[in-house]
Amino acid sequence: MGSRILVSQKEIREKVVKILTDIGVPGEDAALTADILLDAELRGVESHGLMRVKTYAERIRLGLIEADPEIRIELNGAVARVDGGNGLGQVVMARAASAGIDLAKKYGIGMVTVCHSNHFAAAGYYAEMIAKERCIGIVTTAAAPVMAPYGGREVLLGTDPVAIAFPAAEQTFYGDISTSASSRGKIRVYSKTGREIPSGWALDRDGNDTTDAAEALEGILLPMSGHKGYILAMAIEAACCLLSGANLSCESSTIFDYTRTTNTGHSLIAVDIAHFLPPEEFEERAQQWFDRLRNSTPQPGHQIQIPGEMGDRRRREAGETISVLRETVEAIDELSGRNWRLWR
Amino acid sequence: MGSRILVSQKEIREKVVKILTDIGVPGEDAALTADILLDAELRGVESHGLMRVKTYAERIRLGLIEADPEIRIELNGAVARVDGGNGLGQVVMARAASAGIDLAKKYGIGMVTVCHSNHFAAAGYYAEMIAKERCIGIVTTAAAPVMAPYGGREVLLGTDPVAIAFPAAEQTFYGDISTSASSRGKIRVYSKTGREIPSGWALDRDGNDTTDAAEALEGILLPMSGHKGYILAMAIEAACCLLSGANLSCESSTIFDYTRTTNTGHSLIAVDIAHFLPPEEFEERAQQWFDRLRNSTPQPGHQIQIPGEMGDRRRREAGETISVLRETVEAIDELSGRNWRLWR
Repeated sequence: MGSRILVSQKEIREKVVKILTDIGVPGEDAALTADILLDAELRGVESHGLMRVKTYAERIRLGLIEADPEIRIELNGAVARVDGGNGLGQVVMARAASAGIDLAKKYGIGMVTVCHSNHFAAAGYYAEMIAKERCIGIVTTAAAPVMAPYGGREVLLGTDPVAIAFPAAEQTFYGDISTSASSRGKIRVYSKTGREIPSGWALDRDGNDTTDAAEALEGILLPMSGHKGYILAMAIEAACCLLSGANLSCESSTIFDYTRTTNTGHSLIAVDIAHFLPPEEFEERAQQWFDRLRNSTPQPGHQIQIPGEMGDRRRREAGETISVLRETVEAIDELSGRNWRLWR
Repeated sequence: MGSRILVSQKEIREKVVKILTDIGVPGEDAALTADILLDAELRGVESHGLMRVKTYAERIRLGLIEADPEIRIELNGAVARVDGGNGLGQVVMARAASAGIDLAKKYGIGMVTVCHSNHFAAAGYYAEMIAKERCIGIVTTAAAPVMAPYGGREVLLGTDPVAIAFPAAEQTFYGDISTSASSRGKIRVYSKTGREIPSGWALDRDGNDTTDAAEALEGILLPMSGHKGYILAMAIEAACCLLSGANLSCESSTIFDYTRTTNTGHSLIAVDIAHFLPPEEFEERAQQWFDRLRNSTPQPGHQIQIPGEMGDRRRREAGETISVLRETVEAIDELSGRNWRLWR
């Protein structure tokens, strides 16, 4: 990938906030969006980090995302439907997660579906938000169409990720996975180093399974473990789209299609641990389990980790700086220098 | 695998009921257990079918499963904790699923955790039970320890499956997957035909990744898609064991260990579709989506299916007979001929 530079977290965050507020995003929403993107970047997931700012700004400028949306929440028992008013995915989903936590605290479990939202970046952020309230958080979203159904060769499903987080005594379990066998980003790394990808990751343009990374990049992603990823992706779209009224992946397009809105759907479940047992007991037993797994014998050349701890460590060790792709920094510099108000 | 014979569904069901009632299982519970095992067998999942009767009977006879358990259900808002009283997993989980449906109808969503249960065979059965009530059903269980953590080489996790079901206008989505890359049963098929297994499925006894099926059978299963299956298995055990008070996989043993009880944990979530939109709308849109996926272009030599439809078809086409492994039929014949009452 491109070269990286070390910048001040505070400075780049201020620039992102300026870019967004300049085009009409309320200050609090801009700060939240900046924080969520920065968090992914700090965890080392740059594909869900600051590189997204440019696309978000462009879509707001074109009227494809509402800068200041009217978000409607309709409660019904322990579930809620959120209509995101076509706002930034971060703003909409953080609101949905808060509603989910409130429901969980009241009923033991809460579920929230979301329609008319947009790309929200890392699902794990919202799951962690829920885990911080001593709940189990499960967060899913429909993603842009890039994947074929199991046995098929048409792009009809998204990489539809699921993130799960819950607290332990000394750390937070944080898992965030796509339901595809791999990602374009990972295949790109194989391509650059000239390595073959495993069979089952992708089809070439003619719909044949390929181990050639370059051909795969022009082709179609496949579900993880064949039918297993297919089942999970479909279940996720059922919750995020059928239940909410959002577009299925096969009905939507990518955020790089600047001709239409996405009507992206998400869903989340929050489970209040205290409704089952004292949270301290849960967290203590979880930590003992984590320690047992972590201290078990590794495979030669491997290390056993608890999901999330590598990202936690990176985030902690970053201090006040952050390493960002040079082209991302340049784009943010350029955008924050513009006087966007002139464009509106 | 072994040879199969065609038997009458009614007759073999009656024999299973007799085996269980002879050792003290109430008639209704015995009938339910027989129906659940028969259903898996009819769907073509013989590993979760009638071959289990012998082990269940043996464990009941040894006092390791309670024939007539006291099942306690503790409700708390939209969630419930079930203590299965060490009863048959089928009896306990069917009760838990009913409680989950009731909660979903009342609150929009319900979650039930279960401890002190036993092997319940196919998770999909209970998910389908929930789907029949126009809900989305998500069912998970902790399984016996056979799998290593990602990067590890000790047996500390189960194949911890998740099943998901929901209704469409003309069919039911029914997905039931383990979180391991493969199963021993599947590896056994490779071993018998002398084929190599893919890398990433299993470790040999020394903890090295192996493509030799025979070595894999003596070794350790690996999580599906590496860290992805690891994350899902851990999340499933958090819900089924930490939340419920059941044994984690690393604390339990297989049902073939006749020295101790298992304290198996399960969990389920039921989501009432009617709390979000009219179920007919959901089901109609789901069906149109299924048809679109099914009618899309397949890969050469493949067919695109909606999860569950192959099993549905098998079950429908079975008529009044069923094809069962000869050794399973013989074991059931032998057990149902015994007068177990003499043993007690």
